[in-house]
Amino acid sequence: MAVQIRKLDSTAPDFTQTLDALLAFEAETDDAIESAVARILADVKKRGDAAVLEYTNTFDRIPNGGAASMAAFDVGQAELDAALAALPDAQRDALRVAAERIRVFHERQKQELNGFTFTEPDGTVLGQRVTPLDRVGIYVPGGKAAYPSSVLMNAIPAKVAGVQEIVMVVPTPSGVKNQMVLAAASIAGVTRVITIGGAQAVGALAYGTESIPAVDKIVGPGNAYVAAAKRRVFGTVGIDMIAGPSEILVLCDGTTDPDWVAMDLFSQAEHDELAQAILLCPDADYIARVEESIHKLLPTMPRAATITTSLTDRGALVKVRDMEEACTIANAIAAEHLEISAEEPLKWADRIRHAGAMFLGRFSSESLGDYCCGPNHVLPTSRTARFSSPLGVYDFQKRSSIIQVSEAGAQTLGKVAATLAYGEGLQAHARSAELRLKS
Amino acid sequence: MAVQIRKLDSTAPDFTQTLDALLAFEAETDDAIESAVARILADVKKRGDAAVLEYTNTFDRIPNGGAASMAAFDVGQAELDAALAALPDAQRDALRVAAERIRVFHERQKQELNGFTFTEPDGTVLGQRVTPLDRVGIYVPGGKAAYPSSVLMNAIPAKVAGVQEIVMVVPTPSGVKNQMVLAAASIAGVTRVITIGGAQAVGALAYGTESIPAVDKIVGPGNAYVAAAKRRVFGTVGIDMIAGPSEILVLCDGTTDPDWVAMDLFSQAEHDELAQAILLCPDADYIARVEESIHKLLPTMPRAATITTSLTDRGALVKVRDMEEACTIANAIAAEHLEISAEEPLKWADRIRHAGAMFLGRFSSESLGDYCCGPNHVLPTSRTARFSSPLGVYDFQKRSSIIQVSEAGAQTLGKVAATLAYGEGLQAHARSAELRLKS
Repeated sequence: MAVQIRKLDSTAPDFTQTLDALLAFEAETDDAIESAVARILADVKKRGDAAVLEYTNTFDRIPNGGAASMAAFDVGQAELDAALAALPDAQRDALRVAAERIRVFHERQKQELNGFTFTEPDGTVLGQRVTPLDRVGIYVPGGKAAYPSSVLMNAIPAKVAGVQEIVMVVPTPSGVKNQMVLAAASIAGVTRVITIGGAQAVGALAYGTESIPAVDKIVGPGNAYVAAAKRRVFGTVGIDMIAGPSEILVLCDGTTDPDWVAMDLFSQAEHDELAQAILLCPDADYIARVEESIHKLLPTMPRAATITTSLTDRGALVKVRDMEEACTIANAIAAEHLEISAEEPLKWADRIRHAGAMFLGRFSSESLGDYCCGPNHVLPTSRTARFSSPLGVYDFQKRSSIIQVSEAGAQTLGKVAATLAYGEGLQAHARSAELRLKS
Repeated sequence: MAVQIRKLDSTAPDFTQTLDALLAFEAETDDAIESAVARILADVKKRGDAAVLEYTNTFDRIPNGGAASMAAFDVGQAELDAALAALPDAQRDALRVAAERIRVFHERQKQELNGFTFTEPDGTVLGQRVTPLDRVGIYVPGGKAAYPSSVLMNAIPAKVAGVQEIVMVVPTPSGVKNQMVLAAASIAGVTRVITIGGAQAVGALAYGTESIPAVDKIVGPGNAYVAAAKRRVFGTVGIDMIAGPSEILVLCDGTTDPDWVAMDLFSQAEHDELAQAILLCPDADYIARVEESIHKLLPTMPRAATITTSLTDRGALVKVRDMEEACTIANAIAAEHLEISAEEPLKWADRIRHAGAMFLGRFSSESLGDYCCGPNHVLPTSRTARFSSPLGVYDFQKRSSIIQVSEAGAQTLGKVAATLAYGEGLQAHARSAELRLKS
C-alpha cells in the first residue's frame, strides 16, 4: 500500500468543512467494554485482593498456573535497581540525562506555585496554601506500548510536587517484565511497583485492597479498558485527561530541509494508525518537496505500515495563504504538538493561543521533547489544549483557601454576608454572620 | 420531628467504621436520567437551535405557547443593568462589595501564575506560557436554588483570567427571571446571558448551535440532568468538578460561644437534606452545650425541617481525645469547609493537609466566606479536597510548553533522544533527532 497523503488548499471553498472532518475524532464507547469494566471494578471493590489476583492471573496469562498471592506481583527496590544496573551504559546514561532534565524543568513549575497570604487593614488574613497529594498511582501499559519515557514523565512531576508515595502498576503479559520500564522506575523514584494492569489495577488503586492502599489520583495512559475504568473511578480519585490519538501540526515557512519535516511527520504517524500528522505551509513547491521526501524516506522506516495508514487516513499537507493564516488555523486545531519550523519562530509563536507544546525553530524536533528536553510529553490531545495543560507538578498539588477574619473584619463582612444570605433565603447563613456582630 | 444528632466518641472500638459509614456518599446514577440526557445531547448536536428551543419551551413551561425563536431567550445588557439598578440599595451595595473582594482575591491567584522561560548555556530556551481560555459557559440553576453569589464566584475568576467571552445560561421556569441573578451577571461582567437550562443548555454550550457559539469549558452547579450532561460532554469541553452535597467540619477547642458553633452547623445543614455538618471537640461538656444550643436555636430557623433531616441523617458531634486527634481525623475527612474555632487556630491549621477552605478563628464563620471574604465558595466536596482545589483563576487558564532547541542543543539532546527512541522501538523518532546531528 503506497502512502496517499491528502493535499488541501486553504482557499478551497469547502476547506473548513474538509479540515473539520479530518480533525474529527470520537473515541468509541464500546458497550461490551463498559459493562466488563463496571463488573471488574465492582468486584475489586467488594473482594479486594482476591479479585485482583484472579483477574491478573487470567488476563495477563501469568505462567505456572498463576501467582499464588498478591505478594508475587510486588517488585522490590532491589529488582528495580538491578534492572537499571543491567542496562547498556548508553541507555542508562540517556535515561539519567532525561530524568535530570525533566526534574529541572518541573522544579521551575513548582517554584511558580507557592501559595500566598495577605493581611487586610482590619487584620483579616486571606490566602491560599499549596500542598502535595499524599499518594498517587501511575498506570504504565505493558507489552508493546511499554515506554520507559512515560514512567519518567508521569513519576517525576509527582516526586517534584512532594508526593510521598508513588505507586506504579504495570501489567506483565505472560509474566514478562520490561527491564527498561523497571529501570526508569528506579531512576524516577517510584516508591512501589506492582505488576498488575487493566481495570482491576485501576480499581485496586482507586478503592484500595488488603495489600494496596487507595491512592488519591491515578495518571498514565492505558488501553480502552483502562480508560473506561479511569472515567468510572473519577470522583473517588482524581485522574488525568483521557488521551486521544497523538497529533503533530507542523507550521513551516519553507526554509527547513524537507527531509526533516517529513521525518517529523513520520515520528507522530509511527505511534498509531489513528495518529494525526499535518503540515501547514504557504509554499506549494516546498510542499511538493516534502511529499517527495515522504516517498523517499518511507521505505526506510521499520514502522512503514503504521505510518502509511496514519498519513493516508488522517494526514494532510495544507497549502495556506501565508504564515498568518497558518497561525489562525493552528489556533482552531489546538494541536497537542505544534512545530513552528521557520526563520522567525517566536514571531509566529506569539500568535498561537492554543497548543499543548510548541517546538520553535527547525532544530526543535518533537522527538527531542518526547524524551529529554525537560517539559512533559503528556499533553492535551483532540483540541483539548483549548482548555487543558501538559501534565505537570500542578497536577500533583492542590490548593486550600485560608480565611482568618478578625473581630473588626467580622463586623463589616458580617453585614454584607447577612444581606446577601437573606436575599438568597438562607437565614442560618445570615444569623451565623450576625452572631459575630457586636451590636 | 425533633433533631437527633448522633454523638460519637473517637475512643469507641468501631469509631472508624462508624465515621466512614457516615461520610460515605455515592451519587446515584439514574438510568432514566442518563438515557434522557444522552438523547437530548444527541438531538442538540444534530438539530441545534431547533432542539434547544423545543426542549426549553416544554421543560421550562415558557408561557404563551413558548418562545418563537432562540432570540427570545437572550437577555440584553440593558436588562441586566436595569435589574441591578432596581435592586434595594443594601443588596446592590452588598453585591458590589462582595464582587470587588472576590476580584481582589482572585487577582492574587492570577499574579502567582505568570509562566516562565529560561535559557540554557547552549542557547536552548525552555518555558511555559499561561493563556486564558477563549470562551466559557457558566451554568446557573433556576428556581429555588438560584444564587447570585454563585454567579459572582463562577464569573469573576474567568473575567480575572482574561476570558473574553463569558456566556451564562440560566433556566427560567415558567418564564420567571431572578432579578438578583441578572444583577449579579451585570456586576460580574458576564458577556451574554441566555435563559435556557438543563441538558439542552449544556449541549448548546458544548457543541454550539446557530445562535450559540461552542465554549471551551462549562462550570457551575446544576441538577442531576445538568451533572449527567456535563459528565458526557467532558472531553469535548472542559468541566469543573461535579459537586456532591455541601459539608462543614468544625474543629473546636471548647472556647467558642456554643450558639455560634450551632449556627455554623445549621448554615451548612440548611442547604440540603444531604448536607453534612460535623463537630470535633475534645471537651464533652462543651459538646453538650452545643447540643443545647442546637435544640434552643432550631425552632427559630425558617428552614428547620431541612436542618433537622440533615443533622439527624448525616450530622455528628464527635468527642475526640485532643485537638491533635481532631486534626488527624480532619485530614481523613478532607472537608469542603473546615472551621478551626480555637484559641490558636494557626497551630492546628499547620497540621491540616486536606481541606477545600480553612476558616481560622471563631470570627471566621463559613457564611462570611460563602459570600464576601474573597476566596471562592466553589470548593471540592466528598473528600475530593485530597486531590482538587477551589474554583479559581487557574481553572480558566491553561499552559503551553515552549521548547526552542539551539543547533548546539540539538547535538547533545539528539543523541539522548535517539538512544531512548531506539530503545522504545520508535525509529522515526530516533531518525528525526539524528537528522539534526551535524556528524
